Amino acid sequence: MEFTILAKDSGSKARLGKIGTPHGEVSTPVFMPVGTQGAVKALTPEQVRGLGADIILGNTYHLYLRPGHRLIADLGGLHRFMNWHGPILTDSGGFQIYSLGALRKITEGGATFQSHIDGSGHFLGPEAAVEIQEALGSDIMMCLDECIAYPAARGEVEAALGRTARWALRCKNSRRSDRQALFGIIQGGVYPDLRRRGVDQIATIGFDGYAIGGLSVGEPKELLLENLAATAPLLPDDRPRYLMGVGTPEDLVEGVHHGIDMFDCVMPTRCARNGLLFTNGEKVVIKNARYREDGAPVDSTCDCYTCQNYSRAYLRHLYMADEILAMTLNTIHNLRYYLRLMERIREAIREDRYRDFRDGFLRERSAEDKEMTSR
Amino acid sequence: MEFTILAKDSGSKARLGKIGTPHGEVSTPVFMPVGTQGAVKALTPEQVRGLGADIILGNTYHLYLRPGHRLIADLGGLHRFMNWHGPILTDSGGFQIYSLGALRKITEGGATFQSHIDGSGHFLGPEAAVEIQEALGSDIMMCLDECIAYPAARGEVEAALGRTARWALRCKNSRRSDRQALFGIIQGGVYPDLRRRGVDQIATIGFDGYAIGGLSVGEPKELLLENLAATAPLLPDDRPRYLMGVGTPEDLVEGVHHGIDMFDCVMPTRCARNGLLFTNGEKVVIKNARYREDGAPVDSTCDCYTCQNYSRAYLRHLYMADEILAMTLNTIHNLRYYLRLMERIREAIREDRYRDFRDGFLRERSAEDKEMTSR
Repeated sequence: MEFTILAKDSGSKARLGKIGTPHGEVSTPVFMPVGTQGAVKALTPEQVRGLGADIILGNTYHLYLRPGHRLIADLGGLHRFMNWHGPILTDSGGFQIYSLGALRKITEGGATFQSHIDGSGHFLGPEAAVEIQEALGSDIMMCLDECIAYPAARGEVEAALGRTARWALRCKNSRRSDRQALFGIIQGGVYPDLRRRGVDQIATIGFDGYAIGGLSVGEPKELLLENLAATAPLLPDDRPRYLMGVGTPEDLVEGVHHGIDMFDCVMPTRCARNGLLFTNGEKVVIKNARYREDGAPVDSTCDCYTCQNYSRAYLRHLYMADEILAMTLNTIHNLRYYLRLMERIREAIREDRYRDFRDGFLRERSAEDKEMTSR
Repeated sequence: MEFTILAKDSGSKARLGKIGTPHGEVSTPVFMPVGTQGAVKALTPEQVRGLGADIILGNTYHLYLRPGHRLIADLGGLHRFMNWHGPILTDSGGFQIYSLGALRKITEGGATFQSHIDGSGHFLGPEAAVEIQEALGSDIMMCLDECIAYPAARGEVEAALGRTARWALRCKNSRRSDRQALFGIIQGGVYPDLRRRGVDQIATIGFDGYAIGGLSVGEPKELLLENLAATAPLLPDDRPRYLMGVGTPEDLVEGVHHGIDMFDCVMPTRCARNGLLFTNGEKVVIKNARYREDGAPVDSTCDCYTCQNYSRAYLRHLYMADEILAMTLNTIHNLRYYLRLMERIREAIREDRYRDFRDGFLRERSAEDKEMTSR
């Protein structure tokens, strides 16, 4: 997998780059819309592409359980199955298995867990995680990792860290070809020294890219930022850096500041379905009565299809009336907000003014938060 | 409102025509997708238009209750509100009020009813029905009618028939301009002689078009066809004829045979959301296990986006996984099936072979039904 750094910002660790994959190029820093079950919720692939998405995420755990990776492989792979012909990154299932809580048991061999769909029993080890992702045919695969809840005792985090490293090696050894890239994942909870150890272990094995996992699992924002700042700069400079499952627009801006190249999060799509819309000003909770007769678009500065064609009053009506179209139009807006933010981020790096961009963005946000609070 | 008959089939009563409206032309016979609450469920207006829809339906009852016709008028009318810039027909609310059952009371003045949303009390008379539709700004308005359940005693049907005629006159008299067309509705239950009387009464008042209402409310298919055959040919020849709320593909083909120009029905969209897909062969119940690994499209003869890009296996997966995209892709397919059927119908009339087309279509369907039954 090729990764080219095109520019570096002089006032921060931000980098502009591109990733070459078998299904096309990805401009970084990039936000990857989440298509958990083989679809970005409520959108066609053409709509997703039209919003400016280069690459989307698929979920190993979900697709393994339903409809099954063998079925997808038999039908020509995930790209063809879901009619998305650009790059796909598949996560390994580590985070989903962690999310199962009491329904899973982790041993050195791998994870034994019960399906959230029908309670059936399953085993997923590092080798199987790679095999499944090879069957799906994603462009970028992720190593199986052991994610730990927050808070967790240091000893527990340390044990998971060691296991994650041993699993990473097993993942790498079980690959059948290098056509699909494989990324390693750094765990370590909120202990910067364990994070550093994780970087050492994973980078020593050597991967096509490096991910920071196990953040945004309930820890305070300060700890997320502290561990991000402690980990990101240590990751190999010449490979993409991916901050998994993060986050808010502010998190993305901070992540780029610390040298992150890739992000994914369900936030824009999930919030959209709950009627929470991102804007350059205040967030819009579309069901609020104040929007009942509001003929203005969600965000007058937004170039998305929804803002170009529909009023807040119409979107509120669709939401109140439980119309499926509400999900589609809201998702279009929120994803476009995220993808446009990434465009602005890339432009700022290209023009070597990322530090100013970040400071201005966070200042505006903080002022906005204060305004919201004082209401 | 202009209506031009372009061709008549020599072997049936089928006619090819066009209707001119302030928002564009409609080729008839036409099927109108239903957009009850100001949206065709699960689709953007561009998707609806792309399927070949000339005109869509809006619902007076629903839009009056939520978000309110005044709000829609204040925001520039229904076309702008919902971003559909083609023709819109609004029904009058008569059928929805009928559907409320015990929640409504009909008097000579109009209908008193309780909202299905919050139980609030409302009154809708003929004048209000027109006023609401004028506020919505639809291209074609419908008179308020009194629809009767099946079965019903002749005396009850007769009373509703008389009231429907008196209400029709009041609707016509309360119009403020003739920019929006107004259609009269023929009731009469399953009594052909009452249907004939209804035609006399309504045609004597004189409207821009004529609708057959009160069918497809639970009566046996034979009675629907008998009353259709008894009513349609009596309707003024030089005005569009609209069979309300009907129906299956076979019903559409039969309706055209008897001289009907316009149809609407929730069947294609509602069936789509329930995973029932129309094809030129057997109906596809997409959740069936037999489609689990089926790499073929829903209908290999279909030109829709869904059939061009997705397998039955993928559609089944989306449906089983409760993905919103299932609703969108299924609706695209079913609506395209209906709209393509209308294209084939118009082509057959143009080529003066409608009788053959109809006979062949019904024969295939009947063979298909037998095959389904014998399984």
